[in-house]
Amino acid sequence: MSAQNLTLLTDLYELTMMQGYFETQENETVVFDVFFRENPNKSGYSIMAGVEQVIEYIKNLNFSYEDVDYLRGLGIFSEDFLHYLSGFHFSGSIYAIPEGTVIFPKEPLVKVIAPIMEAQLVETAILNIINHQSLIATKTSRVVFAAQGDGIMEFGLRRAQGPDAGLYGARAAIIGGCVGTSNVLAGKLFDVPVMGTHAHSWIMSFKDEYTAFKEYAKLYPDACTLLVDTYDTLKSGVPNAIRVFKEMRDAGIKPKSYGIRLDSGDLAYLSKQARKMLDAAGFTDAVIAASNDLDEMLIHDLKIQGAAITSWGVGTNLITSKDCPSFGGVYKLAAIQNKEGEFVPKIKISENTEKITNPGNKTIYRVYDKETGKIRADLICFADEQYDTNEELLLFDPNATWKKTRLEGGTYTMREILKPIFINGECKYQSPSVMEIAEYCKREKDTLWDETKRLFYPHRVYVDLSQKLYDTKAKLLDEMSR
Amino acid sequence: MSAQNLTLLTDLYELTMMQGYFETQENETVVFDVFFRENPNKSGYSIMAGVEQVIEYIKNLNFSYEDVDYLRGLGIFSEDFLHYLSGFHFSGSIYAIPEGTVIFPKEPLVKVIAPIMEAQLVETAILNIINHQSLIATKTSRVVFAAQGDGIMEFGLRRAQGPDAGLYGARAAIIGGCVGTSNVLAGKLFDVPVMGTHAHSWIMSFKDEYTAFKEYAKLYPDACTLLVDTYDTLKSGVPNAIRVFKEMRDAGIKPKSYGIRLDSGDLAYLSKQARKMLDAAGFTDAVIAASNDLDEMLIHDLKIQGAAITSWGVGTNLITSKDCPSFGGVYKLAAIQNKEGEFVPKIKISENTEKITNPGNKTIYRVYDKETGKIRADLICFADEQYDTNEELLLFDPNATWKKTRLEGGTYTMREILKPIFINGECKYQSPSVMEIAEYCKREKDTLWDETKRLFYPHRVYVDLSQKLYDTKAKLLDEMSR
Repeated sequence: MSAQNLTLLTDLYELTMMQGYFETQENETVVFDVFFRENPNKSGYSIMAGVEQVIEYIKNLNFSYEDVDYLRGLGIFSEDFLHYLSGFHFSGSIYAIPEGTVIFPKEPLVKVIAPIMEAQLVETAILNIINHQSLIATKTSRVVFAAQGDGIMEFGLRRAQGPDAGLYGARAAIIGGCVGTSNVLAGKLFDVPVMGTHAHSWIMSFKDEYTAFKEYAKLYPDACTLLVDTYDTLKSGVPNAIRVFKEMRDAGIKPKSYGIRLDSGDLAYLSKQARKMLDAAGFTDAVIAASNDLDEMLIHDLKIQGAAITSWGVGTNLITSKDCPSFGGVYKLAAIQNKEGEFVPKIKISENTEKITNPGNKTIYRVYDKETGKIRADLICFADEQYDTNEELLLFDPNATWKKTRLEGGTYTMREILKPIFINGECKYQSPSVMEIAEYCKREKDTLWDETKRLFYPHRVYVDLSQKLYDTKAKLLDEMSR
Repeated sequence: MSAQNLTLLTDLYELTMMQGYFETQENETVVFDVFFRENPNKSGYSIMAGVEQVIEYIKNLNFSYEDVDYLRGLGIFSEDFLHYLSGFHFSGSIYAIPEGTVIFPKEPLVKVIAPIMEAQLVETAILNIINHQSLIATKTSRVVFAAQGDGIMEFGLRRAQGPDAGLYGARAAIIGGCVGTSNVLAGKLFDVPVMGTHAHSWIMSFKDEYTAFKEYAKLYPDACTLLVDTYDTLKSGVPNAIRVFKEMRDAGIKPKSYGIRLDSGDLAYLSKQARKMLDAAGFTDAVIAASNDLDEMLIHDLKIQGAAITSWGVGTNLITSKDCPSFGGVYKLAAIQNKEGEFVPKIKISENTEKITNPGNKTIYRVYDKETGKIRADLICFADEQYDTNEELLLFDPNATWKKTRLEGGTYTMREILKPIFINGECKYQSPSVMEIAEYCKREKDTLWDETKRLFYPHRVYVDLSQKLYDTKAKLLDEMSR
């Protein structure tokens, strides 16, 4: 994507509104927040991803001659406005939560502070990128959790929603905890491990299964995973694999990694039978890998059944986040700067109460238990609020304000998680490598209590508002409903 | 995508298998079929899409110096093989069902006839492209059906699974029947209508809702759709919209199209109330548009409730095909050419019986009722089988061969639906424009019986095998199970 100009990857209404602001307003500086309302897949948390691609997008923002010409052809834009577009660049500031961070609903994941015309234009692409990658990173994290330490390989490219979904989905999957991907382009562009075995067509192109296995083992003795279900897993596939492994053993070849892959049938039963057969032949270190429409629920269930699988190839359900294929991030106006330079908080009310926004120019402090390092709560407050961790911190549920928690001074730590990415149009952030982000993400998950990480009915992490923010919101709501 | 080189957009195992074939085989010509096993979304049919992007992909297939260098760095490929890759181009033949055609499970949608190394490489990208676009075209077709002739606008870019999913998803949505998309880049690249209204932030950036509406109407008098739910739909939004429409009427301004958009709350109730208010003010031709997590089920239900909505903006649920976000197309070896040039049929059996493939070099004839022009059945047969529509045609269910239908000569017509796209590496197909494909797709849907188009428990269209193909398959299965 970095080479592509995505400037027109926006909704038409961003451009018509831009022209509207151009004609009617003073292009005041505004604050927009990206936030989401619910964790996908009934998860207890989500994983932030996509910031590096947002940076590339913002850096490359400019309307080419062809872009302007196309817009002219629509017949709804004035020459003055088109002239403005042809010189457009992004001059605002952007704050974001770094990739790999665990995130929760209602928090500003990305904050854009910019003249309203610029802030409006970037809405669609920022949402597209963050929504997609955060979704896949979150889904992956659940699958990885279910596998209890086994490696998860991302195998979904052929079922991804287009080339980018495969490419950036693989990136997000590595961030979320996959040990590798089958996607070669992702391997090249993001310097992440690529993996694979072979297909049924490999077997079918030889005169028999044994010959196909033997030739594969000769070619790839170091990573020799044989797909055993082309004809009959237990009667043909596993015996032929064992025959080839024996020949390797007899020839003194010691593969770094070898084993079998199951891709159909009853994975619980077949894996246990295959394990017995491999063990009986002395191949106790042969890995049994599995694929075939896996997701966190199936892996969880196979683990409960004692399936002898220790390596998992996950495709469709991960790369599309099948049970919840959208993240639901939105982009809402939170404040408008007045002539005095102050950010005047704005609120969006709605017939649907859960769509009401948090007003103002905000930031987020993550509050940790000092002893365990686990997250106590996140606190959304105005960007200029200050806290002293030596003092008592009062937290309260913004939806049930009588639910209060007092943290004694010295028992907690705080960390501001929203970081500057662009300041006045200049990029101030160097993205870590994808593997570094994946490492960071692992550590981030260690800050969650086990009850939050579980697959079913996870414990919710509290996202509270500062007293000042709560009061401002209440006042605005009150004014609105008069 | 046309400018991008997607050569490495493949699974690693395609390349390791290629090297395997390079080392061990004579690079025989083989036949691979793309087919799917089930219509998505419990639909009675699917819509083919993505062929133009497959063509671009095949045309641009070549390994750059950097690609080869990256592969060398993986340490698993020989210099001989890397040298072969650096000179790689696709020399095979590809047949495909044209975009916009209605398609059914088990049919070869794409047939690749090529030396096995080439045929193997292109598996992943072809599946990725066809799976994605066919999925979205199919989902769209259902949404369009539910709207009973009202226009459906594609508004999903911000929730699409990455930039390509938004871009090619919009393309597929137009093929499936959307009247337009909010996606400006799609508008530019595919010459399709772009549409949009304005966001809540537009309203919130003015001192009040009335002023925001008035300014919008001044700017866009010809397509003036006002979003009425920022503060209170019936108490504020609709009255302010009516005030502005009255001012336009008083000023003698006659907009080409004008109305309101509802984006939250009870769409059935609000639309009926808004209709009454607009009608009472004399604006009987004002359009009521709606958005907010719509899909075919909700639209169907709103229609039953008599909602006064005649224009629909559909986002997340369409662009991700939320209830079924993957198409499930697979790519299976069907035949290997022997030294005499004959295609020897190959079959893939499986522990899961529905995964058994149809062997051989095949084509598809669509059989129509001569009188009504409706589809009677599809007939999969060997590519060299011939039919005479003046003679009786015997159709039978391949899973229950006693279920027979005899079509009298002269009462039916036949059309071969698999078309040559590449012949011996040369492109033989000129893609129609997206709007032409959309027109064709509309006519294609007219060939379906109403019972097949309905949303719930649609009538299944028969996909039968020729006697010769059925016999060959039975013989191969019999040989396998000995």
